Amino acid sequence: MSTSSAQQEDALVTSTDPLHPANLISELCASFYTLGWVTGTGGGICIRTDDKVYIAPSGVQKERIEPAHIFVLPYPQAEPSPHTDRIFLRRPKLNLKESACTPLFWNAFTLRNAGSCIHTHSQNAVMATLLWEKDMIFRISHQMIKGVRIGGNGPTLSYLDTLEVPIINNTPNEEDLTDSMKEAMEKYPSAAAILVLRHGIYVWGDDWQKAKTQTECLDYLFEIGVKMKLAGLKTVLNE
Amino acid sequence: MSTSSAQQEDALVTSTDPLHPANLISELCASFYTLGWVTGTGGGICIRTDDKVYIAPSGVQKERIEPAHIFVLPYPQAEPSPHTDRIFLRRPKLNLKESACTPLFWNAFTLRNAGSCIHTHSQNAVMATLLWEKDMIFRISHQMIKGVRIGGNGPTLSYLDTLEVPIINNTPNEEDLTDSMKEAMEKYPSAAAILVLRHGIYVWGDDWQKAKTQTECLDYLFEIGVKMKLAGLKTVLNE
Amino acid sequence: MSTSSAQQEDALVTSTDPLHPANLISELCASFYTLGWVTGTGGGICIRTDDKVYIAPSGVQKERIEPAHIFVLPYPQAEPSPHTDRIFLRRPKLNLKESACTPLFWNAFTLRNAGSCIHTHSQNAVMATLLWEKDMIFRISHQMIKGVRIGGNGPTLSYLDTLEVPIINNTPNEEDLTDSMKEAMEKYPSAAAILVLRHGIYVWGDDWQKAKTQTECLDYLFEIGVKMKLAGLKTVLNE
Amino acid sequence: MSTSSAQQEDALVTSTDPLHPANLISELCASFYTLGWVTGTGGGICIRTDDKVYIAPSGVQKERIEPAHIFVLPYPQAEPSPHTDRIFLRRPKLNLKESACTPLFWNAFTLRNAGSCIHTHSQNAVMATLLWEKDMIFRISHQMIKGVRIGGNGPTLSYLDTLEVPIINNTPNEEDLTDSMKEAMEKYPSAAAILVLRHGIYVWGDDWQKAKTQTECLDYLFEIGVKMKLAGLKTVLNE
Repeated sequence: MSTSSAQQEDALVTSTDPLHPANLISELCASFYTLGWVTGTGGGICIRTDDKVYIAPSGVQKERIEPAHIFVLPYPQAEPSPHTDRIFLRRPKLNLKESACTPLFWNAFTLRNAGSCIHTHSQNAVMATLLWEKDMIFRISHQMIKGVRIGGNGPTLSYLDTLEVPIINNTPNEEDLTDSMKEAMEKYPSAAAILVLRHGIYVWGDDWQKAKTQTECLDYLFEIGVKMKLAGLKTVLNE
Repeated sequence: MSTSSAQQEDALVTSTDPLHPANLISELCASFYTLGWVTGTGGGICIRTDDKVYIAPSGVQKERIEPAHIFVLPYPQAEPSPHTDRIFLRRPKLNLKESACTPLFWNAFTLRNAGSCIHTHSQNAVMATLLWEKDMIFRISHQMIKGVRIGGNGPTLSYLDTLEVPIINNTPNEEDLTDSMKEAMEKYPSAAAILVLRHGIYVWGDDWQKAKTQTECLDYLFEIGVKMKLAGLKTVLNE
Repeated sequence: MSTSSAQQEDALVTSTDPLHPANLISELCASFYTLGWVTGTGGGICIRTDDKVYIAPSGVQKERIEPAHIFVLPYPQAEPSPHTDRIFLRRPKLNLKESACTPLFWNAFTLRNAGSCIHTHSQNAVMATLLWEKDMIFRISHQMIKGVRIGGNGPTLSYLDTLEVPIINNTPNEEDLTDSMKEAMEKYPSAAAILVLRHGIYVWGDDWQKAKTQTECLDYLFEIGVKMKLAGLKTVLNE
Repeated sequence: MSTSSAQQEDALVTSTDPLHPANLISELCASFYTLGWVTGTGGGICIRTDDKVYIAPSGVQKERIEPAHIFVLPYPQAEPSPHTDRIFLRRPKLNLKESACTPLFWNAFTLRNAGSCIHTHSQNAVMATLLWEKDMIFRISHQMIKGVRIGGNGPTLSYLDTLEVPIINNTPNEEDLTDSMKEAMEKYPSAAAILVLRHGIYVWGDDWQKAKTQTECLDYLFEIGVKMKLAGLKTVLNE
């Protein structure tokens, strides 16, 4: 790689604008660490612009990501959900691998036209998958669900609606969730997120703000839902 | 709008004083986010001076509010609880809408002469509404309730008093709580706050400091009350 | 008060040394707020040097104390536990009152020769008073109690010892706890702290570091003790 | 000690590089304090390079460590697990003692070739020792255990594996855990950490990043495991 092309690549993740995707991913991952969403290198956020996708590395401390660690991929890719032959506009100089969530984030881009996708290992999400494992779908009504959008990108739900988040089985390798996540998104077009049993959640939105606020709303609902269930309260009224 | 009037409007929210309402709202909302009171864009604080009301936007990340996002309204308005025809001294340039809580905050101004009102979606408050739903009133005695004022603006309660916080039913649209909140405030003149079932709480005070410290006291009491109830302990003695 | 004496008084709380008592009280109270120990203006810390006592104001937001808000009293005072006729070296210019805990802090100075005393409303401490109310003494053994000193100022406890923290009844006014706290300290000379039923705790130490680390140890032990009790586990072995 | 040798010693802990071990220990201990891992002076982290070991002092506030407080020892020492005759390259000028965990950290160096070892008093770890006390081994499967390495330094575990963390009995003096920790590490070569009953945990890794992220993963697993156990859920499937 010539010097000038290396400089061009670095320019993709170098900006003084705090809202540049490479800066945002660093800042937001540190904030998610404080929330307990990405402890132990798990979880993260990716951001898509019209023609580029910004993705954090795999297996690194998420509260210590620097913009120089960010991968940039062109969007779209040749394959709808790029498993192996990913094309990059920029790779970090360090010996890093892109997030193992890449094909799962891509599901959100191609199936919901998302501009951002967040993955957490939140204890609230995992407890929800355990306490709703029998139905493989988390359900709650009459709570503050109006911050969540139908399908993750449609109109917001109403207080009187029942929020449903499907739960898919986990697999040892993150990539192997790609097809089952896709199937769940197709089977539940209203679902704003996909829970993964004993693992965590994928949430998307039109942009990073909507992905983040919907993740907060959902995590809040898992937390209150788990508390209600353990206190013997019904989480869905009128059924 | 001419340039000079735009400049005059911006001056209403521009100050180097950290205690200016526009700066305070930004700072306090960020602090409330850390406390888990305003996740997912919900909740917030408004501040009233003698002749102006400062209000945050609706549907935005509350930990990222900037003074330039703040709405300023004259006080009083033509209507006591301004539903539709609100008059503004300043609107943000961004395409923002004022908080949907505006008419509920106004209840606190007109009925209790409050200088500030806070709305949270705190899990402690919501759990309290669920565990005290049968009575539609949260009650606790013999705890640290002396930080709470009778009616929110009177003398402080005593350790030996019983704190009562009425719970009103929730509605899909925040504005539709206006009348039932008003009725509850009139029916319970000693109440320092109004809980909203499965939703959160409205707390007011003579100024932002009193509104904030009373919100902290009440949230603390909901937290300990919920713990006591789940542990099988009575929250009101001597009855 | 002449200008020069006002300047002399202000010099008592003005220092660039972060370890000056006036700076420490501000910093530590903000840290205690984050820990949930002093929400809603409750709780705080005082620091005593050889001949001076530094005390925070009453009824203020503890995370926003500034050095200029600190009271300075000469030590000792004419009365061993100064209820009414306190002598001051410096009062803040703002219309503030010294902490209502002043005579209780004084108990720690006179009875245990403490250099610092901390008061918290920690939920862990309050839950401990509720779950050990029958015995009016919190007891735990075989936990990390070796950070706690016998009497608060003696040698540290051993893992094999049983930590005992007496619980006194609460009163509506903080000052009225003075005598019962004193009696409990005399009755339990090994006690490192005094719990107040449905209210909180007083912890002291030879200096602010020891008072703070012992408060942390005790709060940790109340937290684990409450969890154990609620899970049906015995907190004292070998009895 | 001559001036120049004192200067040489200080140079061992003086660096503008935030990743220098002396700076890292200070920063990480402050971060661990926020996580509740090292309250009340307990716990800490040590870092080993090829020929040096950096260790924090004993009995100090872990969130306030400064690089100048760090001890530096040559590695290896004459004795494999140096109990008494430790050799130092640098001692702090303050009257401090090296961490009582020193010989336990050394176990991780000599038995697992670790580059870093972390000790916490985390409530999650202690609750795990209490709820798994009957078996003296914590066991969980089908959770996010893939961030944990076999033996702490081997390949990562799979989602389908069962994570096992042995629990050893506690002793009043930290040093007296040295032999039983060593025995447990030899008996369980796959164990990535050693739990200490009613006390905490020791976790190691090839470097500070791996030790830290594995501590986070394990703490997360203790937290979810304790929640599952208290909710009546099995933590190990397929047995």
